[in-house]
Amino acid sequence: MNELYSRKDEIEGKITRHTREFLEKFGHVSSFSSQLVTRLTDFALRGKHIRGSLVPFTYALLPGREVSFDAITDVAAALEILQSMLLIHDDIMDQDELRRGKAAIHALYMNDGRTLGVTDPAHYGESLGICAGDVATFLAMRIVASMEADDGLVRSVERFIADELMLVGLSQMQDVHHGQIDGSMVGYDDIIRTYRYKTGRYTFSLPMSLAGLLRGSSHDIRQILEKTGELIGIIFQIKDDELGLFGNPESTGKPNDSDLREGKKTVYVQLLRDLLKDEQRKKLDRILQEYRGPADQEWVLDLMNTHGIREQVEADLLRYRKEIDDILSSLPEEVAELRQGLEKLTDYNMSRSR
Amino acid sequence: MNELYSRKDEIEGKITRHTREFLEKFGHVSSFSSQLVTRLTDFALRGKHIRGSLVPFTYALLPGREVSFDAITDVAAALEILQSMLLIHDDIMDQDELRRGKAAIHALYMNDGRTLGVTDPAHYGESLGICAGDVATFLAMRIVASMEADDGLVRSVERFIADELMLVGLSQMQDVHHGQIDGSMVGYDDIIRTYRYKTGRYTFSLPMSLAGLLRGSSHDIRQILEKTGELIGIIFQIKDDELGLFGNPESTGKPNDSDLREGKKTVYVQLLRDLLKDEQRKKLDRILQEYRGPADQEWVLDLMNTHGIREQVEADLLRYRKEIDDILSSLPEEVAELRQGLEKLTDYNMSRSR
Repeated sequence: MNELYSRKDEIEGKITRHTREFLEKFGHVSSFSSQLVTRLTDFALRGKHIRGSLVPFTYALLPGREVSFDAITDVAAALEILQSMLLIHDDIMDQDELRRGKAAIHALYMNDGRTLGVTDPAHYGESLGICAGDVATFLAMRIVASMEADDGLVRSVERFIADELMLVGLSQMQDVHHGQIDGSMVGYDDIIRTYRYKTGRYTFSLPMSLAGLLRGSSHDIRQILEKTGELIGIIFQIKDDELGLFGNPESTGKPNDSDLREGKKTVYVQLLRDLLKDEQRKKLDRILQEYRGPADQEWVLDLMNTHGIREQVEADLLRYRKEIDDILSSLPEEVAELRQGLEKLTDYNMSRSR
Repeated sequence: MNELYSRKDEIEGKITRHTREFLEKFGHVSSFSSQLVTRLTDFALRGKHIRGSLVPFTYALLPGREVSFDAITDVAAALEILQSMLLIHDDIMDQDELRRGKAAIHALYMNDGRTLGVTDPAHYGESLGICAGDVATFLAMRIVASMEADDGLVRSVERFIADELMLVGLSQMQDVHHGQIDGSMVGYDDIIRTYRYKTGRYTFSLPMSLAGLLRGSSHDIRQILEKTGELIGIIFQIKDDELGLFGNPESTGKPNDSDLREGKKTVYVQLLRDLLKDEQRKKLDRILQEYRGPADQEWVLDLMNTHGIREQVEADLLRYRKEIDDILSSLPEEVAELRQGLEKLTDYNMSRSR
């Protein structure tokens, strides 16, 4: 999917430029400024930039008004910085010390705290991580509020981003909640709802719809971008679950038992759990609480096989795919390019192996 | 200082209206939506609204362009919601379970976690508190991006808020850092710098300058608003330190040993510490780390008396006051009302007893 990432370099350039400007403005204010800029830039640049990339990708598929490339990459860079903020805060919530192969932001501050000999390095790290995320939020706002485009357009972009990020926050609350309560209290529909709002709307609908706003697309077209974004996101997230259980660690880059080890409530696990009774269900809950190794993994995968869980999920995936096709086939001929582009994006997500 | 708070009811009405609109839009999304709105509204309404109130207060003192009262109270409500967000995150960092006389937001979620029987209620509460703060940030952005005013003006307001909130985040990092390292690593200038940026710019310069932006005031006038805001904020914060050590608990509403108990690095403590040596300095550090009761308090206050610390701080206060007077006396006659208003605001801060 090279088209998707064709503007990656420019987006990265923008992230670097904006964080550097931050330093020029605020470097004198705090002894933390320059270190924060280094850490934030490094962190933001380590991502795949799928959200940022979807802005120029979708923009290129749409007819309509022209805005400057500078404005497009500003929106993309702002989304990537917001994504960094969310990950920084998420890592604190999940107590993950690694992110994108390196230390998470709060883990870096935690290490500083250890070096300084503070009383509670973990709390020191979390506190500075919360601040770092907050600073990133306002940096992203600053970028959008300063972009070169029609003032009214900028305000629409801002309103859209604010609404979607409120949704993300609410979904994240649900996610934190699901992560801490036992499986009996989470249903399959709850999981799909989180996928729809947290991944679907946020990772796909948001950048795709922003491209629609930039182009001045009709309300109908923007509705279609939102709706297909949600569905592509659900597919993306189910694929993530699939790769987490059945993927090849060499291509995914992570062990195929890490989701079980983390007790992640994936669609696979939830469908299986709904079919199990008594002792088997108890054992599954125990594994999700306290994973003991390959024998547990084998037991889960065998049961999934017996109950045909992969087939059920595959059927769901095809159902979502069909929904997308139905929406896209209703598109008028003027946006044939959009239809093809979104089909390609869907195919890519359906078939990805990493 | 009744004039300052004369628009309190309208600001509170705006906060309630905007959080209610949030619920109408996002109520269906998450089981957390309606509870969050209740908690956030309740939390935001419990404040004194000094930041919000300074917007209409300063606006009324300035000549210039008229904007709708609706726009003015939108900016005020947004500032108050941002303030709530900062307090929600601060309380997590400070591990304060009480705020404004009631449970802090993360403490409410912590209690929910206990009721639900989650493994780690404290972490559950902190995680949901981080999310709640993030949602509040985007709600504030949404309010500003939607206010009824000239598009270009709104963008200036947004840029200004984003810059100042980045400053707050950086100062908060410094504050967390100061709170966790021992006194020998914090200087008097560091403390004043935190007061300038965290209280001064944020609590005073920001709302005052926003009023200047709304009025379309000249660059010079806005510089004066920023500068006097910083100085009034330093005075405000030093007064806070004074009341925390020497205030009457009946008017301040908090015990006059709570700052010592918390080991707060106030200007008083820092000036004293700089003058102490060996055993006395060690004892002071011990008290700040582990306060043992009235005998400690008496020891500190006696030493402050011996070294004339209150007199030194009083001299500093007068110096800041003089700086403000010098700035205000340079103001042209057209803004005589502004001069009088800011003098009154300064007097109020110099003499407040709660």
